[in-house]
Amino acid sequence: MGLFSRDVLTMDDLFVHALRDIYYAENRIVKLLPGMVDKASDPRLKQALTSHLGETENHILRLQDVFRMYGAEVKGVDCPAFDGLIEEADDVADEVEDRKVLDAALIAAAQAIEHYEIARYGSLIAWAKELAREDCAGVLEKNLAEEKAADRKLTAMAESGVNTAAAV
Amino acid sequence: MGLFSRDVLTMDDLFVHALRDIYYAENRIVKLLPGMVDKASDPRLKQALTSHLGETENHILRLQDVFRMYGAEVKGVDCPAFDGLIEEADDVADEVEDRKVLDAALIAAAQAIEHYEIARYGSLIAWAKELAREDCAGVLEKNLAEEKAADRKLTAMAESGVNTAAAV
Repeated sequence: MGLFSRDVLTMDDLFVHALRDIYYAENRIVKLLPGMVDKASDPRLKQALTSHLGETENHILRLQDVFRMYGAEVKGVDCPAFDGLIEEADDVADEVEDRKVLDAALIAAAQAIEHYEIARYGSLIAWAKELAREDCAGVLEKNLAEEKAADRKLTAMAESGVNTAAAV
Repeated sequence: MGLFSRDVLTMDDLFVHALRDIYYAENRIVKLLPGMVDKASDPRLKQALTSHLGETENHILRLQDVFRMYGAEVKGVDCPAFDGLIEEADDVADEVEDRKVLDAALIAAAQAIEHYEIARYGSLIAWAKELAREDCAGVLEKNLAEEKAADRKLTAMAESGVNTAAAV
């Protein structure tokens, strides 16, 4: 089922559906990240992904808070749009001989996932405010800030450092 | 085939493969946007999507320039990770009675696509620079700047304006 099914008729439906979409996504990311940490070679990349795993576990707890605050059942919905991004990240082959290339591919896959989350949290925050639920928006903003910070850290690694040897 | 197949062994392979990935994505977006324009109700949203269609056509031309500059064959590669996002946007039901909800859903779907592109162009630019191809990076940066501007415009619409009536 996509994010916007025919069952979504009101802003309230849309908000709860998107909340379940990102809840599903965060739960998949928790399962994905340990494998990415194993594949990464650069210690800074390993550290960044490990640290983001801890943050992601916390995002799930915050989302559970938002469900409760909003009075909606805590559950995920399948999101095929997100599954493709997860599969791409999971498919990054650890057989690539050049570890710099592998790290570059892992960073790119992780950033595509981060940006999916940034887009979703942005929509959710706008809708929470429209629904006059500043309380929910405030919690969601904490997750968004951490996704953006994780993305900036990955950008810095892509731009300088992790893969520089590959350019030589 | 995902972005990072076993055929990708060098930074050069990775760059060309990701270039073909985003070329495929931009070509799919050109086909997607007219349907989204038709479904949108708010004239500002229609206008923003129409304007982005023109930009996207230009992005394709710029990507063709980058292929030529880099000496790689101009072609796309299937990208299942992106297909999911396109399908989600295409599935936004125009039967939703509340046009504000439909517009909100269209904006969210469009922003998920924008963020995919922002992530990919970011990776491509970092890799072009590593490969000492500042000329290619410069062209790709033009596309990235327009994607970011389009995303900001959509965020502004999501936050104020297009859907405010739904909160009343």
